[in-house]
Amino acid sequence: MKPFIHPDFLLDTPQARELYHGFAEPCPIIDYHCHLSPAEIAGNRPFANITQAWLGGDHYKWRAMRTVGVPESHITGKASDHDKFLAWAATVPKLLRNPLYHWTHLELARVFGIDDVLLSPETAEAVWQRANAVLAGPGMGARDILAKLGVQCVCTTDDPDDTLDEHRTQNARGDGLRMLPTWRPGRHLALRDVSLPFEAMLEHLRTRHDVFHAAGCRLSDYSVESFAEPASEAEARAIYDDVRAGKEPGSAAREAFAAWLLLFLGRLDAASGWVRQLHIGALRNPNAAMFARLGPDTGFDAIADFPYAEPLARHLSALAAEGALPRTILYNLNPKDTTMLTVLCGSFQDGTPGGRVNLGPAWWFLDQMDGMEENLKAVSALGCLSQFPGMLTDSRSVLSVPRHEYFRRILCRMLGRDLRDGLLPDDLPAVGAMVRAISYGNARALFP
Amino acid sequence: MKPFIHPDFLLDTPQARELYHGFAEPCPIIDYHCHLSPAEIAGNRPFANITQAWLGGDHYKWRAMRTVGVPESHITGKASDHDKFLAWAATVPKLLRNPLYHWTHLELARVFGIDDVLLSPETAEAVWQRANAVLAGPGMGARDILAKLGVQCVCTTDDPDDTLDEHRTQNARGDGLRMLPTWRPGRHLALRDVSLPFEAMLEHLRTRHDVFHAAGCRLSDYSVESFAEPASEAEARAIYDDVRAGKEPGSAAREAFAAWLLLFLGRLDAASGWVRQLHIGALRNPNAAMFARLGPDTGFDAIADFPYAEPLARHLSALAAEGALPRTILYNLNPKDTTMLTVLCGSFQDGTPGGRVNLGPAWWFLDQMDGMEENLKAVSALGCLSQFPGMLTDSRSVLSVPRHEYFRRILCRMLGRDLRDGLLPDDLPAVGAMVRAISYGNARALFP
Amino acid sequence: MKPFIHPDFLLDTPQARELYHGFAEPCPIIDYHCHLSPAEIAGNRPFANITQAWLGGDHYKWRAMRTVGVPESHITGKASDHDKFLAWAATVPKLLRNPLYHWTHLELARVFGIDDVLLSPETAEAVWQRANAVLAGPGMGARDILAKLGVQCVCTTDDPDDTLDEHRTQNARGDGLRMLPTWRPGRHLALRDVSLPFEAMLEHLRTRHDVFHAAGCRLSDYSVESFAEPASEAEARAIYDDVRAGKEPGSAAREAFAAWLLLFLGRLDAASGWVRQLHIGALRNPNAAMFARLGPDTGFDAIADFPYAEPLARHLSALAAEGALPRTILYNLNPKDTTMLTVLCGSFQDGTPGGRVNLGPAWWFLDQMDGMEENLKAVSALGCLSQFPGMLTDSRSVLSVPRHEYFRRILCRMLGRDLRDGLLPDDLPAVGAMVRAISYGNARALFP
Repeated sequence: MKPFIHPDFLLDTPQARELYHGFAEPCPIIDYHCHLSPAEIAGNRPFANITQAWLGGDHYKWRAMRTVGVPESHITGKASDHDKFLAWAATVPKLLRNPLYHWTHLELARVFGIDDVLLSPETAEAVWQRANAVLAGPGMGARDILAKLGVQCVCTTDDPDDTLDEHRTQNARGDGLRMLPTWRPGRHLALRDVSLPFEAMLEHLRTRHDVFHAAGCRLSDYSVESFAEPASEAEARAIYDDVRAGKEPGSAAREAFAAWLLLFLGRLDAASGWVRQLHIGALRNPNAAMFARLGPDTGFDAIADFPYAEPLARHLSALAAEGALPRTILYNLNPKDTTMLTVLCGSFQDGTPGGRVNLGPAWWFLDQMDGMEENLKAVSALGCLSQFPGMLTDSRSVLSVPRHEYFRRILCRMLGRDLRDGLLPDDLPAVGAMVRAISYGNARALFP
Repeated sequence: MKPFIHPDFLLDTPQARELYHGFAEPCPIIDYHCHLSPAEIAGNRPFANITQAWLGGDHYKWRAMRTVGVPESHITGKASDHDKFLAWAATVPKLLRNPLYHWTHLELARVFGIDDVLLSPETAEAVWQRANAVLAGPGMGARDILAKLGVQCVCTTDDPDDTLDEHRTQNARGDGLRMLPTWRPGRHLALRDVSLPFEAMLEHLRTRHDVFHAAGCRLSDYSVESFAEPASEAEARAIYDDVRAGKEPGSAAREAFAAWLLLFLGRLDAASGWVRQLHIGALRNPNAAMFARLGPDTGFDAIADFPYAEPLARHLSALAAEGALPRTILYNLNPKDTTMLTVLCGSFQDGTPGGRVNLGPAWWFLDQMDGMEENLKAVSALGCLSQFPGMLTDSRSVLSVPRHEYFRRILCRMLGRDLRDGLLPDDLPAVGAMVRAISYGNARALFP
Repeated sequence: MKPFIHPDFLLDTPQARELYHGFAEPCPIIDYHCHLSPAEIAGNRPFANITQAWLGGDHYKWRAMRTVGVPESHITGKASDHDKFLAWAATVPKLLRNPLYHWTHLELARVFGIDDVLLSPETAEAVWQRANAVLAGPGMGARDILAKLGVQCVCTTDDPDDTLDEHRTQNARGDGLRMLPTWRPGRHLALRDVSLPFEAMLEHLRTRHDVFHAAGCRLSDYSVESFAEPASEAEARAIYDDVRAGKEPGSAAREAFAAWLLLFLGRLDAASGWVRQLHIGALRNPNAAMFARLGPDTGFDAIADFPYAEPLARHLSALAAEGALPRTILYNLNPKDTTMLTVLCGSFQDGTPGGRVNLGPAWWFLDQMDGMEENLKAVSALGCLSQFPGMLTDSRSVLSVPRHEYFRRILCRMLGRDLRDGLLPDDLPAVGAMVRAISYGNARALFP
């Protein structure tokens, strides 16, 4: 039987196959946004078994397992790694049409070379043995796996106070894998760190921003979960001081503070020539009981649905009016906002090569075939597909790298159909050049 | 000429045909949410003519007739049944690409055996005669029609004070058609029944809930048209007492009361092990003049567009924190919310087999080919298609049962294309088992 | 090589080709909403070069140029027409999958007969020469171009105080091209003209409404960017008087005034039997700095995302209750609202032939292939496709007329696929009649 994951998986036209194999497949990978552990990469962490590499921190899988009836003991609980793997294997056949079904078999094929069986209770034990044998062999540490999968550059997500030592170590190694930090001062936006006085906190952020720049950082990342009218600087200081004094300023004040600090940080990013990422519209920790039990990032988050076109426009306009709008990538979590957001990007284009403000790839829940296609369609029709910054994994596991391949196949599938149908001119080299730019070149240009 | 409704209608791949004919078609039908009259079914109501069976209460058709220029006299007015049928026949050719066009011909074919003509002014008189002749023949009462169309179980929608006598009568008959009640205390949520004191009203609801359970009820149904912060119990009592005292508490208080009562009722449903249905986001009676003239449910309702992710999440979280979140099916009327809602289901999954919270099938205005496909895509990508609870008619007419067939064909069409394109593994039995579960098994599991 | 724009462009089934060439293509064009200059048409304005005809006022192209890195000097600035054309030619190859790519080549083919090359830096100089030679030849004034492209009637967009002299001049000419005015009292809704006292202003609007009617106007047009509870007449007068007195009433009062005046104007439209157009949901001038520099309508507008189902329903209901709801075409800019709006139309249908309230074609940012398809799908499934009012350009350039052809091809493509797949009955004449109605007949019926 032909393997499910075969060389032309998803490539349903001759044009798609030429585009993928001729242009996309040879490109190295730049994973410019993920949540991989710098220590695991710098230290080339070995994995004792496939559960540790694959299920340990993957809240996508956890969520799916809870959905199909797996008890928490076999997800984040005390069951053995072996039993957790069996629980996952029993989940997979129930996930037909879910992206996890494709990802699972793509990752088994690319990382472990297992492409002759589908994961199920019947095959679980054999896959467990084979995968663990591969992991026990040479060249299967975290960094090895990235290298093997063609990763040239990976951007982690880091707190302003992180030392960045692992980044320096890795980059000093000169082994072809760059690891760059990303500036994510979420603690400060959320007023969770008020250890320093207001002015000192701002000065600290300025200093650390420079340290990040020196370590190769060229991207920042902010999670935006509400849009308030920004506080004035005096108001922001007062709110900050209230929190330092142990008073609770209330959610409106907190949001006004965050909106003010976002402007401040935007100016820093602009001054350094960084690309700023705004991840907009998560509804975090909506299940209070499970948040109390398991904490954040455990597979319970959801999607917010508040309107925000006007306040986001005001934020961008305020920075643009100062000449301090950094190059920005916008990510929306609610697909109802994709068109609005793509169009808003266009309102702030100013002749910057590559675009001042661009929509990023389909994020989180939208990172699946339909979601990616909708995202690419919006960028195509309302923005400029040829300067799309390309795919990222957003993942906590090195095994997720094949999502780049998945994206590239979907991109080539879409363009191949267009070529077949005469929607694009019959000029494969031109379309191929666009594929190469989206797969690699545009992301490469984010860094010196 | 090949009939428009032929055996492979909508089945455009060999795989779709195998899935439909081999797996979906043989399944009995469980219509777990509709607005059929228990008396009509228990009494096996005969129909004097096709207008009475087909046009009498169908506000989908009324709406379409108003749209294309039919005067109200021929819709809900005093025109004869014959003339109303002619008006509908004249409407149908104007509805190309509307679901009513498919439904109309599917129902003529399946109920009346008329598949050799399309309904139009030219064919109207002949169809009128033929259909009425069929209705005048044997085995064409309301219950007969359900049986003939393969219905095994039908869930009506009932007020807590309904006697449920017809349900008991029908189920005592043992003729292979179960008729189960659904608990829908809309009057109480809307403060339209304040005849009892507050505590007595709650006790009455508890008692009737038990009576419904004893009559086989396992589903409740709530129409949610706003999301307010729930009142405290003391506040709810005060609002209730105000209404009893003839005072108008205002819409904010009414909404807070409803939000409180929804929590109370959710606990009842959870304690009884019922599946709760939330129908979210109708904009009822927006045309004041026509509401004054014709009353509710006459084809003038629309779709609301307020955001509600956060308050809905709080409601679910409050019940979940008490261990009192019933198994829940969410239905959205505004398609902009489908992704948000499907993802929110995932935030409350807890290892319950079949899922604690699931998205239901495309509801009302979304119950058409594109709407169903979007709904199935969202469940596939963001939830678990294999445990989808399946189709329902939501209808007031026994002639609507072929909408199950329509859904199944659309489902098989989608899966057949996936198989053809290699998006699903080439394992027809596995995909067929999923088709069977969605067509029948998952709905069957809602009941003992 | 086959030209990119060939006779069967977009027509991917035999049925689509029959529908397009047999039914759509022969129809004259009614462009019932655009922003063409009456003076240019009446005066048959000649164009010195292609930049003046094609790039002079086209903010779609400006926006795209800013996106791909063209400096403002070469967009709206002081660069020569020749250099601006080169800048546009360099932009085009970067716009693969953007509607501008199709429009560009369709317009070059239809207006200039240039279908053997694709526009790019390599071909720019030759295209510049060839196009300018065509423009320098006979029969290439603004009115000539409309006639050549098959336009039978064009509706401009006009201020109530416009003299309409050009319209009278053109219509007196009897050359087969009607030019009708459209009533757009945006200045009054925005309180930008308070020169007359309140009652006199209303009387002035009534008088001018009659003047427009006498000049053939049968359409009005309102841009609705917020939905407020309407002021009472007394409140409206007070707000108006405040503005006359130089006081700023604040945005809430302004919106309440506009909501009141919209009711007043709706009654005028209804009394005259006009068709009213509501364009809903633009976010105008979000980039403050560029608005200050270049003014409105320069390619910086975006899409709002506020909810408005309920207030819009109240507005329509208020007029309907008075028997003063004009026939209305609704246009949404945010696609998240398409379903809601299409359904809301149905809530106000009243047996008026052609429909009391209809959804209009995909507007502005949505006027591209995916946007049109989504629009047509919504109208099909939730309204009545056969009475769809059809395409319009909304353009400021006579060169945009081929967007009608683009729409018709997309319509026929959709219907051709349906015929091929058995979703529509195999009755080409019936489907062709619908194509003709949508391409021409339904728009023709807007005018006596």
